[in-house]
Amino acid sequence: MRTQVAIIGAGPAGLLLAHLLHRGGVDAVVIETRSQEYVAARIRAGILESSSVDLLTSAGLGDRIRREGHEHRGIYLQTPDGRHHLDFVDLTGRSVWVYGQTEVQKDLVAAGTAQVFYGAASVALHSLSSRPFVTFTDSSGSDQRLDADVIAGCDGSFGPSRSFFDSSVERVYPYSWLGILADVAPSTDELIYAWHPDGFALHSMRSDTVSRLYLQVPNGTDPAGWSDDRIWSALATRLGDGQDGWKLTPGPITDKSVLPMRSYVQTPMRRGRLFVAGDAAHIVPPTGAKGLNLAIADVALLSRALVALLVEGDSRRADSYSDDALRRVWRCTHFSWWMTTMLHASGDPFDEQLQLSQLRWVTSSAAGAAGLAENYAGLPIGF
Amino acid sequence: MRTQVAIIGAGPAGLLLAHLLHRGGVDAVVIETRSQEYVAARIRAGILESSSVDLLTSAGLGDRIRREGHEHRGIYLQTPDGRHHLDFVDLTGRSVWVYGQTEVQKDLVAAGTAQVFYGAASVALHSLSSRPFVTFTDSSGSDQRLDADVIAGCDGSFGPSRSFFDSSVERVYPYSWLGILADVAPSTDELIYAWHPDGFALHSMRSDTVSRLYLQVPNGTDPAGWSDDRIWSALATRLGDGQDGWKLTPGPITDKSVLPMRSYVQTPMRRGRLFVAGDAAHIVPPTGAKGLNLAIADVALLSRALVALLVEGDSRRADSYSDDALRRVWRCTHFSWWMTTMLHASGDPFDEQLQLSQLRWVTSSAAGAAGLAENYAGLPIGF
Repeated sequence: MRTQVAIIGAGPAGLLLAHLLHRGGVDAVVIETRSQEYVAARIRAGILESSSVDLLTSAGLGDRIRREGHEHRGIYLQTPDGRHHLDFVDLTGRSVWVYGQTEVQKDLVAAGTAQVFYGAASVALHSLSSRPFVTFTDSSGSDQRLDADVIAGCDGSFGPSRSFFDSSVERVYPYSWLGILADVAPSTDELIYAWHPDGFALHSMRSDTVSRLYLQVPNGTDPAGWSDDRIWSALATRLGDGQDGWKLTPGPITDKSVLPMRSYVQTPMRRGRLFVAGDAAHIVPPTGAKGLNLAIADVALLSRALVALLVEGDSRRADSYSDDALRRVWRCTHFSWWMTTMLHASGDPFDEQLQLSQLRWVTSSAAGAAGLAENYAGLPIGF
Repeated sequence: MRTQVAIIGAGPAGLLLAHLLHRGGVDAVVIETRSQEYVAARIRAGILESSSVDLLTSAGLGDRIRREGHEHRGIYLQTPDGRHHLDFVDLTGRSVWVYGQTEVQKDLVAAGTAQVFYGAASVALHSLSSRPFVTFTDSSGSDQRLDADVIAGCDGSFGPSRSFFDSSVERVYPYSWLGILADVAPSTDELIYAWHPDGFALHSMRSDTVSRLYLQVPNGTDPAGWSDDRIWSALATRLGDGQDGWKLTPGPITDKSVLPMRSYVQTPMRRGRLFVAGDAAHIVPPTGAKGLNLAIADVALLSRALVALLVEGDSRRADSYSDDALRRVWRCTHFSWWMTTMLHASGDPFDEQLQLSQLRWVTSSAAGAAGLAENYAGLPIGF
């Protein structure tokens, strides 16, 4: 087989890249090791920046977001001083949307623009410096070879693309999140990020009937050690149940998992004819809601670069892709690190006072609030 | 002897407190272990926030600042992208003034409002819970006892006040500053804060003919290992000599010293009838130019509290002094920590990229710039 762009990974980064390339007149084939059902069901991020919504809309993928997504003007910060609302629309003119990654994935599959080999085994990348190709065994057991002008690694942090890069910088955080999905209407209209001496908590949501909540827990925590009652009790304490008449309503927990937290960035985001995007190039802790948005921003840059390269024969955007993408990657990596270290209990009393002082500043200074809002609501694509 | 307020320490905090109390009709006596000449010659901070200038002006101490000081609209940040000016006046409406601590000290001595025992030995504080008194041996060798309603500890981080507090939080930084004074006109109109892979550098100044410059060096550095040539060469490299036609002009070095960097904050800032202010309560690394300004802000709050207590018999401000002062102390402690960790080479590649991303943000985003400017130019006194 031959295509112009061989895309490794059929998550939102890979499928969106295939979609944008298709619209730009570039042929692509996607290779995915998992089944279509597995990929579709993966629970991940739930917040889209307005830039991400704009990009998806301009690519013809915005109808259901605007119909079924929930636009939020900002977030709440819960601190020992009480609950504070940061209004991103007032502060920056931009909003965010609650719309799960699973829904973005459904929209991309429904668009039908990507030719995908699901269930591929033994995926291997070859000859990256000149005439790249990918070999794999397809789901029927046949060996395949896919020749391409370019390979795009959208295969996450455990895919084969990463093995071609050895220069990454990493930070592992000394805490994890215990995340739950619950069949209960959210107790809040917008996300609540809570600082508490016991540890961070976050009240998020997926829909009008499904809530998503998180608790900071020590690394290595076994979710089995956290009964439903213990989880709801800790969430109530940390989120400020009973303060100013606010109540957290518990409900049936349908999923319980522990997420470790780390940051890594791989530089450059290209090796020869292999370009990487999304989690294959960088991981951020989820505190800033940046992971999916960063993948979308990477893909926006990469699709433009590859259309210029393969349709117009202009290599300038491809040559600057890594530098262009990394500016935003590091901005978001810093922001995610900052939100994470500002909100999680570390056990160090100096850190704790720095956190509280920052939270007071962010909730009382226009400049402090605008700084958080600008980063959370997201920079324009191409920044 | 008897007075209303026994002040320990005749640095700017102690003398300004005596001056403000005098203006408020409260009697004070200052006890200082050093000689008047030693205190007058101590080289310390050189930047006054506009709030500090306003306070000194309202206390009748502003004439010489406005005549001989230099008002700066902002600072320069030197990064790998070049030199960027942050204009605090445009960003926040507030400026800063270059006016050395030695000059503030001279103005306070010239005001003649403080009765000071210089050269006191064996200073000891007693009976803090009810009827406090101070014992010391005066410079003529006579033993003295000073009874007071209140003791104010303005005696820095090595004075006797600190021994009454045991709850402090501290952070020691893994680098120091090598500071020089040079008899040469500054090569810049406003301060240059430089990020460089070799380490931080700062070009500051004392007057039109005296420059003050600093280099990040490892802890434990012996200044004797740094020849004048080596110092000027490192400063030229880090400050960007030769870039865009800018030149660093070297000159005779008249003073060379190594300053360790640490943060500490003591809580609360009161024990019984002992109130502490300035370095006796907190130390910040010098990167944010906050030490002297924080001492002035403490003293502004404390003088108001003690006048209310001792003239009007109203203890409310005295009771809230520690909490009121600590809000600003922690804001400045955070800002000083942030400037320090953003600008100093740590050897960690993840930290380095976070630094560069923050510097790009601060020099390209209005919110980022305003955040730095608001903190550097200083919050209103009483915040």
